[in-house]
Amino acid sequence: MTVHLVGAGPGDPELLTLRAARLIGRADVLVYDRLVAPEILAMAAPWAEMIDVGKNPNGHSTTQDEINEILVSRGDVHDLVVRLKGGDPFVFGRGGEEAAALNEAGIEWTVVPGITSAIAGPSAAGVPVTHRSVSSAFTVVTAHQDPTKDATLDWEALARLGTTLIVLMGAARARQIRDRLVGHGMSADTPVAIVTSATTPQQSTVRMSLHLLGETAVSNPSIIVIGAVADAEMPTAVAAATPSTQSFPLAESPLR
Amino acid sequence: MTVHLVGAGPGDPELLTLRAARLIGRADVLVYDRLVAPEILAMAAPWAEMIDVGKNPNGHSTTQDEINEILVSRGDVHDLVVRLKGGDPFVFGRGGEEAAALNEAGIEWTVVPGITSAIAGPSAAGVPVTHRSVSSAFTVVTAHQDPTKDATLDWEALARLGTTLIVLMGAARARQIRDRLVGHGMSADTPVAIVTSATTPQQSTVRMSLHLLGETAVSNPSIIVIGAVADAEMPTAVAAATPSTQSFPLAESPLR
Repeated sequence: MTVHLVGAGPGDPELLTLRAARLIGRADVLVYDRLVAPEILAMAAPWAEMIDVGKNPNGHSTTQDEINEILVSRGDVHDLVVRLKGGDPFVFGRGGEEAAALNEAGIEWTVVPGITSAIAGPSAAGVPVTHRSVSSAFTVVTAHQDPTKDATLDWEALARLGTTLIVLMGAARARQIRDRLVGHGMSADTPVAIVTSATTPQQSTVRMSLHLLGETAVSNPSIIVIGAVADAEMPTAVAAATPSTQSFPLAESPLR
Repeated sequence: MTVHLVGAGPGDPELLTLRAARLIGRADVLVYDRLVAPEILAMAAPWAEMIDVGKNPNGHSTTQDEINEILVSRGDVHDLVVRLKGGDPFVFGRGGEEAAALNEAGIEWTVVPGITSAIAGPSAAGVPVTHRSVSSAFTVVTAHQDPTKDATLDWEALARLGTTLIVLMGAARARQIRDRLVGHGMSADTPVAIVTSATTPQQSTVRMSLHLLGETAVSNPSIIVIGAVADAEMPTAVAAATPSTQSFPLAESPLR
Protein backbone atom coordinates (compact mmCIF):
# COMPACT_ATOMS: atom_id res chain seq x y z
CA MET A 1 0.00 0.00 0.00
CA THR A 2 2.90 2.33 -0.77
CA VAL A 3 3.60 4.33 -3.88
CA HIS A 4 7.27 5.00 -4.51
CA LEU A 5 8.07 8.02 -6.66
CA VAL A 6 11.28 6.77 -8.24
CA GLY A 7 13.84 8.61 -10.35
CA ALA A 8 15.05 6.59 -13.33
CA GLY A 9 18.07 8.80 -13.97
CA PRO A 10 19.19 10.57 -17.13
CA GLY A 11 19.04 7.72 -19.65
CA ASP A 12 21.88 5.26 -19.09
CA PRO A 13 20.35 2.30 -17.19
CA GLU A 14 23.61 1.96 -15.24
CA LEU A 15 22.86 5.30 -13.60
CA LEU A 16 19.83 3.89 -11.81
CA THR A 17 20.27 3.72 -8.01
CA LEU A 18 20.43 0.41 -6.14
CA ARG A 19 17.18 1.26 -4.35
CA ALA A 20 15.40 2.09 -7.60
CA ALA A 21 16.54 -1.21 -9.14
CA ARG A 22 15.29 -3.19 -6.13
CA LEU A 23 11.93 -1.43 -6.08
CA ILE A 24 11.42 -1.91 -9.82
CA GLY A 25 12.19 -5.63 -9.49
CA ARG A 26 9.61 -6.04 -6.71
CA ALA A 27 6.86 -3.74 -7.96
CA ASP A 28 3.30 -5.02 -8.43
CA VAL A 29 2.58 -2.04 -10.67
CA LEU A 30 4.96 0.12 -12.66
CA VAL A 31 3.67 3.46 -13.92
CA TYR A 32 6.23 4.97 -16.30
CA ASP A 33 7.01 7.84 -18.64
CA ARG A 34 8.17 8.09 -22.22
CA LEU A 35 11.76 8.88 -21.22
CA VAL A 36 12.44 5.70 -19.24
CA ALA A 37 14.86 3.32 -21.03
CA PRO A 38 13.57 -0.13 -22.13
CA GLU A 39 16.47 -1.77 -20.23
CA ILE A 40 15.05 -0.32 -17.02
CA LEU A 41 11.50 -1.47 -17.76
CA ALA A 42 12.92 -4.94 -18.43
CA MET A 43 13.96 -5.13 -14.77
CA ALA A 44 10.31 -5.39 -13.71
CA ALA A 45 8.94 -8.76 -12.56
CA PRO A 46 7.08 -10.71 -15.26
CA TRP A 47 3.84 -10.41 -13.29
CA ALA A 48 4.02 -6.64 -12.82
CA GLU A 49 1.27 -4.52 -14.30
CA MET A 50 2.99 -2.06 -16.67
CA ILE A 51 1.21 1.26 -17.23
CA ASP A 52 2.66 3.60 -19.85
CA VAL A 53 1.46 7.11 -19.08
CA GLY A 54 3.68 8.67 -21.73
CA LYS A 55 1.00 7.99 -24.34
CA ASN A 56 -2.58 6.79 -24.15
CA PRO A 57 -4.15 4.58 -26.86
CA ASN A 58 -5.15 7.70 -28.85
CA GLY A 59 -1.54 8.81 -29.00
CA HIS A 60 -2.04 11.57 -26.44
CA SER A 61 -0.20 11.88 -23.16
CA THR A 62 -2.09 10.90 -20.05
CA THR A 63 -3.02 14.07 -18.15
CA GLN A 64 -1.55 14.75 -14.73
CA ASP A 65 -5.00 14.28 -13.18
CA GLU A 66 -5.31 10.88 -14.84
CA ILE A 67 -1.85 9.89 -13.60
CA ASN A 68 -2.74 10.99 -10.07
CA GLU A 69 -5.90 8.86 -10.26
CA ILE A 70 -3.95 5.82 -11.45
CA LEU A 71 -1.47 6.20 -8.57
CA VAL A 72 -4.25 6.56 -6.02
CA SER A 73 -6.32 3.64 -7.33
CA ARG A 74 -3.33 1.28 -7.65
CA GLY A 75 -1.78 2.47 -4.39
CA ASP A 76 -5.04 1.68 -2.65
CA VAL A 77 -4.97 -2.03 -3.50
CA HIS A 78 -1.37 -3.03 -4.28
CA ASP A 79 1.51 -3.45 -1.85
CA LEU A 80 4.18 -1.88 -3.97
CA VAL A 81 3.55 0.62 -6.73
CA VAL A 82 6.47 2.27 -8.50
CA ARG A 83 5.96 5.57 -10.30
CA LEU A 84 9.03 5.72 -12.50
CA LYS A 85 10.12 9.09 -13.90
CA GLY A 86 13.06 10.18 -16.01
CA GLY A 87 15.72 12.02 -13.98
CA ASP A 88 14.66 12.96 -10.44
CA PRO A 89 11.00 12.99 -9.40
CA PHE A 90 11.34 16.34 -7.63
CA VAL A 91 13.29 18.16 -10.37
CA PHE A 92 10.67 19.36 -12.86
CA GLY A 93 9.12 15.92 -12.58
CA ARG A 94 5.78 16.97 -11.07
CA GLY A 95 6.52 14.50 -8.28
CA GLY A 96 5.35 17.09 -5.77
CA GLU A 97 1.91 17.12 -7.35
CA GLU A 98 1.65 13.33 -7.28
CA ALA A 99 2.78 13.34 -3.66
CA ALA A 100 0.07 15.89 -2.86
CA ALA A 101 -2.59 13.74 -4.53
CA LEU A 102 -1.41 10.67 -2.59
CA ASN A 103 -1.43 12.65 0.64
CA GLU A 104 -4.95 13.76 -0.01
CA ALA A 105 -6.05 10.17 -0.57
CA GLY A 106 -4.23 9.02 2.57
CA ILE A 107 -1.87 6.74 0.66
CA GLU A 108 1.70 6.30 1.88
CA TRP A 109 4.49 7.27 -0.46
CA THR A 110 8.24 7.67 -0.55
CA VAL A 111 10.51 9.44 -2.97
CA VAL A 112 13.67 7.85 -4.34
CA PRO A 113 15.94 10.49 -5.86
CA GLY A 114 17.37 9.87 -9.32
CA ILE A 115 20.37 11.29 -11.13
CA THR A 116 19.08 14.42 -12.81
CA SER A 117 20.11 15.13 -16.39
CA ALA A 118 20.60 18.75 -15.27
CA ILE A 119 23.89 17.64 -13.69
CA ALA A 120 24.64 14.33 -15.41
CA GLY A 121 24.09 15.83 -18.86
CA PRO A 122 26.84 18.43 -18.56
CA SER A 123 28.96 15.89 -16.67
CA ALA A 124 28.68 13.33 -19.45
CA ALA A 125 30.12 15.93 -21.81
CA GLY A 126 32.93 16.52 -19.33
CA VAL A 127 31.49 19.82 -18.09
CA PRO A 128 31.54 20.21 -14.29
CA VAL A 129 28.61 22.40 -13.20
CA THR A 130 30.88 23.96 -10.58
CA HIS A 131 34.63 24.42 -10.83
CA ARG A 132 36.97 26.14 -8.41
CA SER A 133 37.71 29.75 -9.36
CA VAL A 134 35.43 29.39 -12.41
CA SER A 135 31.90 28.90 -11.04
CA SER A 136 30.81 28.55 -7.43
CA ALA A 137 27.08 28.02 -8.01
CA PHE A 138 24.62 26.73 -10.58
CA THR A 139 21.02 27.42 -11.47
CA VAL A 140 18.66 25.03 -13.24
CA VAL A 141 15.65 26.32 -15.17
CA THR A 142 13.27 24.94 -17.80
CA ALA A 143 12.39 26.76 -20.94
CA HIS A 144 8.93 25.30 -21.33
CA GLN A 145 7.61 28.82 -21.60
CA ASP A 146 8.78 31.50 -23.99
CA PRO A 147 11.40 33.39 -21.95
CA THR A 148 10.50 36.67 -23.65
CA LYS A 149 6.99 36.35 -22.17
CA ASP A 150 7.74 34.29 -19.05
CA ALA A 151 6.79 36.18 -15.90
CA THR A 152 7.76 33.35 -13.54
CA LEU A 153 11.52 33.73 -13.96
CA ASP A 154 13.59 36.84 -13.32
CA TRP A 155 15.80 36.66 -16.40
CA GLU A 156 17.60 39.84 -15.43
CA ALA A 157 18.75 38.21 -12.18
CA LEU A 158 19.64 35.03 -14.09
CA ALA A 159 21.74 37.07 -16.53
CA ARG A 160 23.51 38.80 -13.64
CA LEU A 161 24.43 35.74 -11.57
CA GLY A 162 27.60 35.01 -13.52
CA THR A 163 27.60 31.37 -12.43
CA THR A 164 26.53 28.25 -14.34
CA LEU A 165 23.06 28.35 -15.93
CA ILE A 166 21.58 25.02 -17.00
CA VAL A 167 18.50 25.06 -19.21
CA LEU A 168 16.36 21.94 -19.53
CA MET A 169 13.88 21.50 -22.39
CA GLY A 170 15.27 24.59 -24.07
CA ALA A 171 15.75 23.23 -27.60
CA ALA A 172 12.75 25.01 -29.12
CA ARG A 173 13.50 28.31 -27.39
CA ALA A 174 17.27 28.52 -27.68
CA ARG A 175 17.26 31.80 -29.58
CA GLN A 176 14.81 33.51 -27.19
CA ILE A 177 16.94 32.39 -24.23
CA ARG A 178 19.99 33.97 -25.83
CA ASP A 179 18.11 37.18 -26.61
CA ARG A 180 16.76 37.43 -23.09
CA LEU A 181 20.14 36.83 -21.44
CA VAL A 182 22.15 39.07 -23.75
CA GLY A 183 19.41 41.71 -23.51
CA HIS A 184 19.90 41.71 -19.74
CA GLY A 185 23.63 42.17 -20.03
CA MET A 186 25.12 38.67 -20.15
CA SER A 187 28.20 38.68 -22.39
CA ALA A 188 27.53 37.39 -25.91
CA ASP A 189 30.89 35.60 -25.63
CA THR A 190 29.76 33.45 -22.70
CA PRO A 191 30.62 29.80 -23.49
CA VAL A 192 27.72 27.44 -24.20
CA ALA A 193 27.63 23.64 -24.42
CA ILE A 194 24.60 21.81 -25.76
CA VAL A 195 24.46 18.15 -24.77
CA THR A 196 21.90 16.10 -26.70
CA SER A 197 20.64 12.65 -25.59
CA ALA A 198 23.05 12.77 -22.65
CA THR A 199 24.33 9.42 -21.26
CA THR A 200 22.79 7.44 -24.15
CA PRO A 201 24.60 5.93 -27.16
CA GLN A 202 23.24 8.84 -29.22
CA GLN A 203 24.91 11.49 -27.06
CA SER A 204 26.47 14.46 -28.83
CA THR A 205 27.87 17.79 -27.70
CA VAL A 206 28.13 21.11 -29.52
CA ARG A 207 30.01 24.10 -28.12
CA MET A 208 29.63 27.72 -29.13
CA SER A 209 29.49 31.24 -27.78
CA LEU A 210 26.19 32.57 -26.49
CA HIS A 211 25.70 34.85 -29.50
CA LEU A 212 25.41 31.76 -31.73
CA LEU A 213 22.88 29.94 -29.53
CA GLY A 214 19.74 29.27 -31.54
CA GLU A 215 21.29 30.20 -34.89
CA THR A 216 21.16 26.53 -35.84
CA ALA A 217 18.50 24.08 -34.70
CA VAL A 218 18.93 22.37 -31.33
CA SER A 219 17.65 18.79 -31.14
CA ASN A 220 15.56 17.33 -28.35
CA PRO A 221 16.23 16.21 -25.67
CA SER A 222 19.05 18.66 -24.97
CA ILE A 223 20.65 20.25 -21.94
CA ILE A 224 22.01 23.75 -22.55
CA VAL A 225 24.86 24.79 -20.24
CA ILE A 226 25.68 28.49 -20.25
CA GLY A 227 28.75 29.79 -18.39
CA ALA A 228 32.52 29.62 -18.10
CA VAL A 229 32.47 25.90 -17.22
CA ALA A 230 31.20 25.18 -20.75
CA ASP A 231 34.44 26.51 -22.24
CA ALA A 232 36.17 24.04 -24.53
CA GLU A 233 39.44 24.85 -22.78
CA MET A 234 38.11 23.38 -19.53
CA PRO A 235 39.35 19.87 -18.61
CA THR A 236 36.63 18.00 -20.41
CA ALA A 237 38.19 14.82 -21.69
CA VAL A 238 36.51 11.58 -20.83
CA ALA A 239 37.39 8.80 -23.18
CA ALA A 240 37.67 5.45 -21.48
CA ALA A 241 35.25 2.65 -22.15
CA THR A 242 33.42 1.84 -18.95
CA PRO A 243 33.57 -1.65 -17.49
CA SER A 244 29.78 -1.83 -17.39
CA THR A 245 27.76 -4.24 -19.46
CA GLN A 246 26.48 -1.24 -21.37
CA SER A 247 28.69 0.31 -23.95
CA PHE A 248 27.71 3.93 -23.37
CA PRO A 249 30.77 6.12 -23.16
CA LEU A 250 30.40 8.81 -20.53
CA ALA A 251 31.52 11.46 -22.98
CA GLU A 252 32.63 11.52 -26.52
CA SER A 253 35.51 13.96 -26.51
CA PRO A 254 39.03 12.62 -26.99
CA LEU A 255 41.73 13.16 -24.39
CA ARG A 256 43.62 16.34 -24.99
CA MET B 1 44.87 2.51 -16.53
CA THR B 2 41.66 4.44 -15.96
CA VAL B 3 40.67 6.60 -13.04
CA HIS B 4 36.92 6.79 -12.46
CA LEU B 5 35.69 9.86 -10.60
CA VAL B 6 32.67 8.30 -8.91
CA GLY B 7 29.84 9.93 -6.95
CA ALA B 8 28.91 8.02 -3.79
CA GLY B 9 25.61 9.83 -3.35
CA PRO B 10 24.23 11.71 -0.34
CA GLY B 11 24.79 9.15 2.43
CA ASP B 12 22.33 6.27 2.12
CA PRO B 13 24.29 3.39 0.46
CA GLU B 14 21.13 2.41 -1.43
CA LEU B 15 21.39 5.66 -3.37
CA LEU B 16 24.61 4.55 -5.05
CA THR B 17 24.24 3.97 -8.80
CA LEU B 18 24.56 0.53 -10.35
CA ARG B 19 27.66 1.67 -12.22
CA ALA B 20 29.28 3.04 -9.08
CA ALA B 21 28.62 -0.22 -7.23
CA ARG B 22 30.16 -2.27 -10.05
CA LEU B 23 33.23 -0.07 -10.29
CA ILE B 24 33.79 -0.14 -6.53
CA GLY B 25 33.57 -3.93 -6.52
CA ARG B 26 36.19 -4.21 -9.25
CA ALA B 27 38.58 -1.44 -8.24
CA ASP B 28 42.29 -2.15 -7.68
CA VAL B 29 42.56 1.09 -5.73
CA LEU B 30 39.85 3.08 -3.92
CA VAL B 31 40.64 6.67 -2.99
CA TYR B 32 37.88 8.00 -0.75
CA ASP B 33 36.68 10.93 1.33
CA ARG B 34 35.49 11.32 4.87
CA LEU B 35 31.82 11.51 3.83
CA VAL B 36 31.61 8.09 2.16
CA ALA B 37 29.55 5.56 4.17
CA PRO B 38 31.31 2.44 5.57
CA GLU B 39 28.70 0.23 3.87
CA ILE B 40 29.90 1.58 0.52
CA LEU B 41 33.58 1.03 1.34
CA ALA B 42 32.69 -2.54 2.33
CA MET B 43 31.70 -3.21 -1.29
CA ALA B 44 35.36 -3.04 -2.34
CA ALA B 45 37.20 -6.26 -3.18
CA PRO B 46 39.32 -7.66 -0.32
CA TRP B 47 42.49 -7.09 -2.33
CA ALA B 48 41.76 -3.45 -3.15
CA GLU B 49 44.17 -0.81 -1.87
CA MET B 50 42.11 1.59 0.25
CA ILE B 51 43.38 5.16 0.50
CA ASP B 52 41.58 7.50 2.91
CA VAL B 53 42.27 11.06 1.80
CA GLY B 54 39.85 12.52 4.32
CA LYS B 55 42.55 12.44 6.97
CA ASN B 56 46.26 11.77 6.87
CA PRO B 57 48.16 10.12 9.75
CA ASN B 58 48.66 13.53 11.41
CA GLY B 59 44.91 14.11 11.49
CA HIS B 60 45.04 16.64 8.69
CA SER B 61 43.21 16.36 5.43
CA THR B 62 45.24 15.40 2.42
CA THR B 63 45.71 18.46 0.21
CA GLN B 64 44.18 18.60 -3.25
CA ASP B 65 47.67 18.50 -4.78
CA GLU B 66 48.45 15.35 -2.82
CA ILE B 67 45.18 13.75 -3.95
CA ASN B 68 45.94 14.65 -7.56
CA GLU B 69 49.36 13.03 -7.19
CA ILE B 70 47.86 9.85 -5.72
CA LEU B 71 45.38 9.61 -8.60
CA VAL B 72 48.09 10.13 -11.19
CA SER B 73 50.56 7.67 -9.61
CA ARG B 74 47.95 4.95 -9.07
CA GLY B 75 46.25 5.60 -12.42
CA ASP B 76 49.62 5.14 -14.10
CA VAL B 77 50.07 1.54 -12.91
CA HIS B 78 46.65 0.10 -12.01
CA ASP B 79 43.89 -0.97 -14.38
CA LEU B 80 40.98 0.41 -12.40
CA VAL B 81 41.24 3.22 -9.89
CA VAL B 82 38.08 4.58 -8.26
CA ARG B 83 38.11 8.08 -6.80
CA LEU B 84 35.00 8.00 -4.59
CA LYS B 85 33.45 11.28 -3.50
CA GLY B 86 30.34 12.11 -1.48
CA GLY B 87 27.48 13.35 -3.65
CA ASP B 88 28.41 14.10 -7.25
CA PRO B 89 32.05 14.58 -8.33
CA PHE B 90 31.23 17.66 -10.38
CA VAL B 91 29.02 19.43 -7.82
CA PHE B 92 31.41 21.22 -5.46
CA GLY B 93 33.45 18.02 -5.45
CA ARG B 94 36.61 19.40 -7.06
CA GLY B 95 36.27 16.61 -9.59
CA GLY B 96 37.07 19.09 -12.34
CA GLU B 97 40.46 19.77 -10.78
CA GLU B 98 41.26 16.08 -10.51
CA ALA B 99 40.17 15.58 -14.10
CA ALA B 100 42.48 18.41 -15.15
CA ALA B 101 45.42 16.82 -13.30
CA LEU B 102 44.71 13.45 -14.95
CA ASN B 103 44.45 15.10 -18.36
CA GLU B 104 47.78 16.77 -17.85
CA ALA B 105 49.37 13.45 -16.95
CA GLY B 106 47.77 11.76 -19.96
CA ILE B 107 45.76 9.34 -17.84
CA GLU B 108 42.31 8.27 -18.98
CA TRP B 109 39.38 9.05 -16.72
CA THR B 110 35.60 8.92 -16.66
CA VAL B 111 33.09 10.57 -14.40
CA VAL B 112 30.18 8.65 -12.87
CA PRO B 113 27.52 11.07 -11.60
CA GLY B 114 26.17 10.57 -8.10
CA ILE B 115 22.98 11.69 -6.38
CA THR B 116 23.80 15.13 -5.01
CA SER B 117 22.66 16.01 -1.51
CA ALA B 118 21.66 19.39 -2.93
CA ILE B 119 18.58 17.69 -4.40
CA ALA B 120 18.29 14.47 -2.37
CA GLY B 121 18.60 16.35 0.93
CA PRO B 122 15.51 18.47 0.42
CA SER B 123 13.78 15.49 -1.22
CA ALA B 124 14.43 13.26 1.80
CA ALA B 125 12.62 15.84 3.90
CA GLY B 126 9.74 15.81 1.41
CA VAL B 127 10.73 19.14 -0.15
CA PRO B 128 10.62 19.16 -3.96
CA VAL B 129 13.22 21.64 -5.28
CA THR B 130 10.77 22.61 -8.02
CA HIS B 131 6.99 22.54 -7.78
CA ARG B 132 4.44 23.67 -10.34
CA SER B 133 3.18 27.21 -9.72
CA VAL B 134 5.47 27.46 -6.65
CA SER B 135 9.03 27.36 -8.01
CA SER B 136 10.18 26.86 -11.56
CA ALA B 137 13.94 26.93 -10.96
CA PHE B 138 16.55 26.24 -8.31
CA THR B 139 20.01 27.52 -7.52
CA VAL B 140 22.68 25.67 -5.57
CA VAL B 141 25.46 27.56 -3.76
CA THR B 142 27.97 26.77 -1.05
CA ALA B 143 28.57 29.01 1.92
CA HIS B 144 32.20 28.10 2.43
CA GLN B 145 33.01 31.79 2.38
CA ASP B 146 31.43 34.49 4.52
CA PRO B 147 28.57 35.76 2.32
CA THR B 148 28.99 39.29 3.69
CA LYS B 149 32.51 39.32 2.21
CA ASP B 150 32.10 36.91 -0.67
CA ALA B 151 32.79 38.61 -3.98
CA THR B 152 32.25 35.48 -6.06
CA LEU B 153 28.47 35.34 -5.67
CA ASP B 154 25.98 38.06 -6.59
CA TRP B 155 23.79 37.85 -3.47
CA GLU B 156 21.55 40.62 -4.73
CA ALA B 157 20.69 38.56 -7.81
CA LEU B 158 20.25 35.46 -5.61
CA ALA B 159 17.85 37.38 -3.36
CA ARG B 160 15.88 38.56 -6.37
CA LEU B 161 15.45 35.24 -8.16
CA GLY B 162 12.39 34.24 -6.14
CA THR B 163 12.93 30.56 -6.89
CA THR B 164 14.42 27.81 -4.70
CA LEU B 165 17.84 28.56 -3.16
CA ILE B 166 19.78 25.58 -1.79
CA VAL B 167 22.80 26.29 0.38
CA LEU B 168 25.38 23.55 0.98
CA MET B 169 27.86 23.74 3.86
CA GLY B 170 26.03 26.75 5.26
CA ALA B 171 25.72 25.65 8.90
CA ALA B 172 28.43 27.98 10.24
CA ARG B 173 27.21 30.96 8.22
CA ALA B 174 23.45 30.65 8.50
CA ARG B 175 22.98 34.05 10.09
CA GLN B 176 25.16 35.86 7.55
CA ILE B 177 23.25 34.17 4.72
CA ARG B 178 19.97 35.44 6.19
CA ASP B 179 21.37 38.96 6.65
CA ARG B 180 22.70 39.06 3.13
CA LEU B 181 19.45 37.82 1.53
CA VAL B 182 17.12 39.97 3.64
CA GLY B 183 19.45 42.93 3.16
CA HIS B 184 18.99 42.52 -0.58
CA GLY B 185 15.22 42.45 -0.33
CA MET B 186 14.25 38.81 0.12
CA SER B 187 11.19 38.58 2.38
CA ALA B 188 12.01 37.71 5.99
CA ASP B 189 8.94 35.45 5.90
CA THR B 190 10.41 33.23 3.18
CA PRO B 191 10.08 29.59 4.31
CA VAL B 192 13.28 27.74 5.21
CA ALA B 193 13.92 24.04 5.79
CA ILE B 194 17.19 22.78 7.27
CA VAL B 195 17.88 19.11 6.62
CA THR B 196 20.69 17.65 8.70
CA SER B 197 22.42 14.32 7.92
CA ALA B 198 20.06 13.81 4.98
CA THR B 199 19.30 10.21 3.92
CA THR B 200 21.09 8.74 6.95
CA PRO B 201 19.50 7.25 10.10
CA GLN B 202 20.39 10.52 11.89
CA GLN B 203 18.36 12.67 9.51
CA SER B 204 16.39 15.54 11.01
CA THR B 205 14.53 18.53 9.59
CA VAL B 206 13.78 21.93 11.09
CA ARG B 207 11.49 24.47 9.44
CA MET B 208 11.32 28.19 10.11
CA SER B 209 10.96 31.55 8.43
CA LEU B 210 14.03 33.23 7.01
CA HIS B 211 14.17 35.83 9.80
CA LEU B 212 14.89 33.03 12.30
CA LEU B 213 17.68 31.40 10.25
CA GLY B 214 20.87 31.37 12.30
CA GLU B 215 19.18 32.36 15.57
CA THR B 216 19.83 28.85 16.83
CA ALA B 217 22.83 26.74 15.91
CA VAL B 218 22.68 24.69 12.71
CA SER B 219 24.45 21.32 12.85
CA ASN B 220 26.77 19.94 10.20
CA PRO B 221 26.26 18.49 7.63
CA SER B 222 23.13 20.41 6.73
CA ILE B 223 21.36 21.48 3.56
CA ILE B 224 19.49 24.78 3.87
CA VAL B 225 16.54 25.19 1.49
CA ILE B 226 15.18 28.72 1.16
CA GLY B 227 11.97 29.38 -0.78
CA ALA B 228 8.26 28.64 -1.01
CA VAL B 229 8.86 24.90 -1.56
CA ALA B 230 10.18 24.69 2.02
CA ASP B 231 6.78 25.67 3.39
CA ALA B 232 5.41 23.18 5.91
CA GLU B 233 2.09 23.33 4.08
CA MET B 234 3.64 21.79 1.00
CA PRO B 235 2.95 18.08 0.41
CA THR B 236 5.93 16.82 2.34
CA ALA B 237 4.89 13.58 3.93
CA VAL B 238 7.01 10.54 3.33
CA ALA B 239 6.53 7.88 5.91
CA ALA B 240 6.80 4.39 4.53
CA ALA B 241 9.62 2.08 5.43
CA THR B 242 11.50 1.20 2.29
CA PRO B 243 11.83 -2.40 1.18
CA SER B 244 15.60 -2.06 1.05
CA THR B 245 17.94 -3.97 3.28
CA GLN B 246 18.80 -0.65 4.88
CA SER B 247 16.38 0.80 7.36
CA PHE B 248 16.84 4.44 6.47
CA PRO B 249 13.49 6.17 6.09
CA LEU B 250 13.48 8.63 3.23
CA ALA B 251 11.96 11.28 5.44
CA GLU B 252 10.79 11.50 8.99
CA SER B 253 7.63 13.55 8.76
CA PRO B 254 4.31 11.81 9.43
CA LEU B 255 1.58 11.69 6.82
CA ARG B 256 -0.70 14.64 7.09
